[in-house]
Amino acid sequence: MEFLTGVLQKETMEISDLVRPGLEGSEVKVNGAIHTIRDMGPIAFVILRKREGLLQCVYEPGAADFSLKDLKEADTIEVSGTLALSEKAPSGIEVRMKSVRILSEPVEAMPIPVSKWKMNVSLETNLDLRPISLRNIRERAKFRIQEGIVRGFRDFLTAQGFTEIHTPKIGSKGAEGGANIFKLDYFHHPAILEQSPQFYKQMMVGVFDRVFETAPVFRAEKHNTKRHLNEYTSLDFEMGYIDGFEDIMAMETGALQNIMKLLEKEYQRELKLLGTELPRVDKIPCVRFDEAKRLVSEKYDRPIKNPYDLEPEEEVLIGKYFREEFGSDFVFVTHYPSKKRPFYAMDDPADPTYTLSFDCLFKGMEITTGGQRIHDYGMLIDKIYKRGMTEEGMEHYLMAFKHGMPPHGGLGIGLERLTMKLLGEDNVRETTLFPRDLSRLEP
Amino acid sequence: MEFLTGVLQKETMEISDLVRPGLEGSEVKVNGAIHTIRDMGPIAFVILRKREGLLQCVYEPGAADFSLKDLKEADTIEVSGTLALSEKAPSGIEVRMKSVRILSEPVEAMPIPVSKWKMNVSLETNLDLRPISLRNIRERAKFRIQEGIVRGFRDFLTAQGFTEIHTPKIGSKGAEGGANIFKLDYFHHPAILEQSPQFYKQMMVGVFDRVFETAPVFRAEKHNTKRHLNEYTSLDFEMGYIDGFEDIMAMETGALQNIMKLLEKEYQRELKLLGTELPRVDKIPCVRFDEAKRLVSEKYDRPIKNPYDLEPEEEVLIGKYFREEFGSDFVFVTHYPSKKRPFYAMDDPADPTYTLSFDCLFKGMEITTGGQRIHDYGMLIDKIYKRGMTEEGMEHYLMAFKHGMPPHGGLGIGLERLTMKLLGEDNVRETTLFPRDLSRLEP
Repeated sequence: MEFLTGVLQKETMEISDLVRPGLEGSEVKVNGAIHTIRDMGPIAFVILRKREGLLQCVYEPGAADFSLKDLKEADTIEVSGTLALSEKAPSGIEVRMKSVRILSEPVEAMPIPVSKWKMNVSLETNLDLRPISLRNIRERAKFRIQEGIVRGFRDFLTAQGFTEIHTPKIGSKGAEGGANIFKLDYFHHPAILEQSPQFYKQMMVGVFDRVFETAPVFRAEKHNTKRHLNEYTSLDFEMGYIDGFEDIMAMETGALQNIMKLLEKEYQRELKLLGTELPRVDKIPCVRFDEAKRLVSEKYDRPIKNPYDLEPEEEVLIGKYFREEFGSDFVFVTHYPSKKRPFYAMDDPADPTYTLSFDCLFKGMEITTGGQRIHDYGMLIDKIYKRGMTEEGMEHYLMAFKHGMPPHGGLGIGLERLTMKLLGEDNVRETTLFPRDLSRLEP
Repeated sequence: MEFLTGVLQKETMEISDLVRPGLEGSEVKVNGAIHTIRDMGPIAFVILRKREGLLQCVYEPGAADFSLKDLKEADTIEVSGTLALSEKAPSGIEVRMKSVRILSEPVEAMPIPVSKWKMNVSLETNLDLRPISLRNIRERAKFRIQEGIVRGFRDFLTAQGFTEIHTPKIGSKGAEGGANIFKLDYFHHPAILEQSPQFYKQMMVGVFDRVFETAPVFRAEKHNTKRHLNEYTSLDFEMGYIDGFEDIMAMETGALQNIMKLLEKEYQRELKLLGTELPRVDKIPCVRFDEAKRLVSEKYDRPIKNPYDLEPEEEVLIGKYFREEFGSDFVFVTHYPSKKRPFYAMDDPADPTYTLSFDCLFKGMEITTGGQRIHDYGMLIDKIYKRGMTEEGMEHYLMAFKHGMPPHGGLGIGLERLTMKLLGEDNVRETTLFPRDLSRLEP
């Protein structure tokens, strides 16, 4: 009988293995996809694309037992050769090729220059050709950074005693109602795709005290803007036994600090590739909604049109203001008007026109919405009826409150938006692996 | 201007803070939900449910500035008191209550005894009352274990150079076709819910070499069995530059080893609550599909009905066989018949009736399906046409192969099934936070 006992050790080496001191001169085996071939006449550079970056292989006719003509871009190959130091090469090393084994071959040449630093293709083309455009090393670096954001978020919350949950995406009714819900047929019953894990994460505060989820959410919004997607990844948490909604903002600040720390520590390669400078998150200013509107209206000489709403241009100006006045790319805007927030938002006892809620803006764009929730059953029922809603379809949600819930609150962060602003992109599709919008359902 | 600088420090203490040596006799503050009150006459035990477990608080009329009557089950409270050692109490400590602050109150008594060790309610009732039945500490412990499984899976793959991806769940066509796909209307275009991230993770092997995803998948199967769900969490990975499908099984073995190690290290409390013994994963036997059928047929005197299919009863017997003969709860069954596998499975060059694929059985149930995939464009197209399929709707998937893909393979693990078998449950709904099946769309 054969047995599996764990990961099989391989002869082939990764870049992080090759750069270890003292290996120069040794015989090594490496594999990868041929990113590009630069034929310089006497010698040629065969650049391999590997998961840790690019690796320079050098072809010299006399030293290798194969012809350069045997190789073409997008072949995947295994190379045997000698490791050498090379100042000009990526990571300071190169492999002098001796022999090669071709693992696979493409059948068509690339329609776009994926090996160029900048591909200079339109966003449409980039998205249409996503399976190959992401092979560009700067394109793929964006999603390595995105991975780091999610890791930093999860690791932090786990350390803070949160439990990760997996809530259903098919439901019978959306958490916040409204027209922006995708509908589907579920074995001849009407069903919807959840626009948020809101109800579930709140119910689970009654069970685990602190929960988080990193999962897709679905919004059938008919906006076709640079910052809206119809499906995106939401980084959600919800926590009980809070003293106020400041606890939620403080926890987000901690999470952002941990994210930046992790990126700084483990994603330097990608940050350099993208020329990204990490924002300061040691202290994030916090300003009331009405005060923020007044501040930018005064500083930028802009009349307040609607005191109960924040237009995208106002968000941009608030971002500008806090950048200029406090050197911060982040700002918490608090106390949003009650009528702009869902029924479960806790109204401010000092003035119920406003709520104990907040948005976090990053470089002038909302990336987070959060706040304290109503935890008292009677208060929740009152607000539902005051809004002209009914309990229908919310029986299970309300069950949690009927049987006691601690004071709690939470938030949702749009992962693709956070990545977009971090990387200085101006369209959220740039930082979405396979975006879904009004006109895009493929690839 | 106010600033947020990170997580706010609190006076209230968690159980892990309280058990630190030398704290007995100190004044402490704790909060939690009243799990149960046991009035013993002269004194009473007020048991708090906190995220780290149960905490015993002791009420003595003379020592406290409030009346026991002020408290009831499911209140959430903040307690001030003196920490004392107590051998019989959970975690060996108790808080002698001095004063109390009520944070919230329920409006109705619990319909089920959530504070009992076993609630003795039917699965239907348990699921109908999920928001409160999960407050039972053994119920919630199952999902802490589930969290540990996901952490162990992710942490291992991250360390092995995999990149985490987030692929869309709304698509235009399913990866494997068939009737078991949920359909929805996407802005007047026909769309589906992805039954697997298969196509996307394969395409991303061409970009990141190694990828994983932990996300929901959707299956419109009309089975109503103890092991099927219509929505579940799939732990997927896909890796390039493999030498054979043994690399995939070896990687899964490594992941399972890491999962058990993490559970052993950080989830002892929950394992004890549930009386779970972790399975051995140091070596996992590996047997061919046809050989496995023969072995159980001989040992258990059971005729082979269909040489190309594995019935659930046969899976149970294979599990039994490897438990009895090799002391292993896990077994890899390899070389499944080609006609039972999707078109993208790599046929065995030695006998194309079979594939270079496998299932992993755990205690007699399939928890993983995986294998090597076809990476050659021509071979893939051939197989598509041989199956009577067309390229329609697969243009983007095929694009990745047209432009070169390394040899690769991967797998998908059903999270809820793995949890179920680990905990010795006999219905997958027991280990699903909010199950979705033919008759259940709520809560």
